[in-house]
Amino acid sequence: MIEKGLEAFKRGEFVLLFDFDDREGETDFAIRSDAVKPEHIVRMRKDGGGLICTALHPQAAKNFGLPFASEILQPTHLAEQEGDIPYDRRNHSSFSLWVNHRDTFTGITDIDRALTVTSLADQVKRTLNGGGDTFAAEFRTPGHMALLRAADTLLDQREGQTELSIALAEMAGVTPAVTICEMLDETTGRALTKENARKYADEHGFVFLEGKEVKEAWYARKSA
Amino acid sequence: MIEKGLEAFKRGEFVLLFDFDDREGETDFAIRSDAVKPEHIVRMRKDGGGLICTALHPQAAKNFGLPFASEILQPTHLAEQEGDIPYDRRNHSSFSLWVNHRDTFTGITDIDRALTVTSLADQVKRTLNGGGDTFAAEFRTPGHMALLRAADTLLDQREGQTELSIALAEMAGVTPAVTICEMLDETTGRALTKENARKYADEHGFVFLEGKEVKEAWYARKSA
Repeated sequence: MIEKGLEAFKRGEFVLLFDFDDREGETDFAIRSDAVKPEHIVRMRKDGGGLICTALHPQAAKNFGLPFASEILQPTHLAEQEGDIPYDRRNHSSFSLWVNHRDTFTGITDIDRALTVTSLADQVKRTLNGGGDTFAAEFRTPGHMALLRAADTLLDQREGQTELSIALAEMAGVTPAVTICEMLDETTGRALTKENARKYADEHGFVFLEGKEVKEAWYARKSA
Repeated sequence: MIEKGLEAFKRGEFVLLFDFDDREGETDFAIRSDAVKPEHIVRMRKDGGGLICTALHPQAAKNFGLPFASEILQPTHLAEQEGDIPYDRRNHSSFSLWVNHRDTFTGITDIDRALTVTSLADQVKRTLNGGGDTFAAEFRTPGHMALLRAADTLLDQREGQTELSIALAEMAGVTPAVTICEMLDETTGRALTKENARKYADEHGFVFLEGKEVKEAWYARKSA
């Protein structure tokens, strides 16, 4: 499945990305950010229902000066501490800042969010190719698009959808900015089960990938 | 309409709250937070599609030590500056922190978000009745529920859905913690128009209120 997944991802199609049975046990829509159109935001918010976020490559996040939210919010007395995340006690959450592109109006419409997301991908491409820092000229915080900063050494360090999706982008050879959204189940009030996410993937012609497949391919490639 | 709106709001039903033609021009679902069940989160994410946020009374936000995001993020170089908000150049955005209740798992499911929201209402009620501060014991940041902090003097100062919804709660005599979500239109990629939001309200038996009606009632009440 991994090869089919990488091909679909490269073409700008959604891939459904499950993490691990013993982690969140959640499936996310995942799409390369430079391919996002308003219709993709619509599908994520209607069929996914979670938080639409954009995961960024750690080097890009560093170049942009994007901190982890858990760090910058330490002065507040309710800031997350080590061990607070129930499905991953060793790591903090990958949330960075929440941004709007400066040309958006409210920042929340499908058109606005697609603009924010594609512009983020442009910036990631630019900075990883050695371009100057124009991030603050294009975006402001707070905003309506949650940014996720992938762990420095990706899957060696953390195995969240953030790192899985950036690993996927690297393997597909595309700009490592990936927009993701959790799939929820309105009938249970919980995350959509793996079985039902797989069913949705089949019905809509999307590739369904598990974290273990992504991890296997990632380490096979690294040791090759 | 305002009396019918206040009655419905008091009963824990959604009210559809439009701001102003010359402001965002957006309609939000608005519901008292202590009445929120997972099914309400479902309706907001499926029929609304925007960001699900909880607006808090300014005094409660102060008691909890909740800053405006635009303040605490000033150390970052992309922090919002005065005049940055296209639909309201005089004010900053009302975003405060993003939180999860500590008993949530991922924080994003309908059950998790309903728990976060109802617990927020409990805390607001408690603090406005002179109870001790247990906010940080119940919530951590970052999280999946965006908090909005209403301006100190409410509608005198700012006329956003944040202030309109808290004014509504005060007039209805309920705990001033209100959960709101923008209504988007997938066919245009923009906000749902006022006409279509009104149509949705009629079809589903919800009261549709405009900011000008809320404002009028608010000032009539103040001068009474």
